[in-house]
Amino acid sequence: MSDALDPDAYLASLRRLRQSRRFLDRPVPREDLEKLLEVARWTGSAKNSQPWHLVVVTERETNEALAGYGAFTGFLSGVAASIVVALEGTGRSVAYDDGRLQERVMLAAAALGLGSGTAWFGTPESRQQVRDLLGMPAELEPWSAIGLGWTDTSQRQAAPELSGRKPIEEIVSWERYRR
Amino acid sequence: MSDALDPDAYLASLRRLRQSRRFLDRPVPREDLEKLLEVARWTGSAKNSQPWHLVVVTERETNEALAGYGAFTGFLSGVAASIVVALEGTGRSVAYDDGRLQERVMLAAAALGLGSGTAWFGTPESRQQVRDLLGMPAELEPWSAIGLGWTDTSQRQAAPELSGRKPIEEIVSWERYRR
Repeated sequence: MSDALDPDAYLASLRRLRQSRRFLDRPVPREDLEKLLEVARWTGSAKNSQPWHLVVVTERETNEALAGYGAFTGFLSGVAASIVVALEGTGRSVAYDDGRLQERVMLAAAALGLGSGTAWFGTPESRQQVRDLLGMPAELEPWSAIGLGWTDTSQRQAAPELSGRKPIEEIVSWERYRR
Repeated sequence: MSDALDPDAYLASLRRLRQSRRFLDRPVPREDLEKLLEVARWTGSAKNSQPWHLVVVTERETNEALAGYGAFTGFLSGVAASIVVALEGTGRSVAYDDGRLQERVMLAAAALGLGSGTAWFGTPESRQQVRDLLGMPAELEPWSAIGLGWTDTSQRQAAPELSGRKPIEEIVSWERYRR
């Protein structure tokens, strides 16, 4: 860890990450997007397979189209940019790697002052729509996208029922499982 | 982002995370493990379902037993501690959430100066062995574990073929898919 990073502040930043799905009408500089892509590029993956291709979408019209595909994508109509994550394969292992990549990119976005949220293309039909829109080959599965933008910090509070967490005793055991 | 965190140094830390699977024979303080668990607890998950239970194992004998279950777990015999991640369910969505949690914990470990690596219980048989060892109920799937410990920084270099990444042009397109 670099001397420029205080461990306690760093851990606090990891605890603090939340999803944002409402953004200001203000573009994200290309330079910031490139920084996020570099972070994504260095994400670890099973056997270093790097089973992904990322499509960055800044065109409003394209993001509005993506917002219509699937049940949990509507907020993409209001993002400044999205990063569609297309994976090679449908297995558990690539889903795990997808989670690693998205977590890292969302943390990087927060470091740049950006909000971010995950969108899901949960059905085969919605993934085919994404493929058609973006000109993707059949062997890539566009499972998800990260929506990005500047947030109105005056409206930062998430609904309490979505921001709470189970107490530590409920999710952790020591040495052996106990409930 | 806190003022105590320089964004460039933060992004560098995200790019720099690597897996460690060889550790010094030196325990990890309980206080550090508790910090990692707090970070894990705050990980986001689909619909805030928090579909996990974590078992922290510091006993050498138990970690040695875990090291015998499955094909990619051998290094657990030499960890100072492991965190077994048991998930509610087998689906793609929980695998994605597992990736998010592990990425966050590995970043937190690095912030504390600790190395970490992922172990996989890839077969139903190996997961049943883990369940039996740790006394876990059948409805939990112990898919993976995070191995933790102090690393010998004089031997930090990973094999180059495992530490490289594809060039950015190969994994990123802008606006539409291009190769």
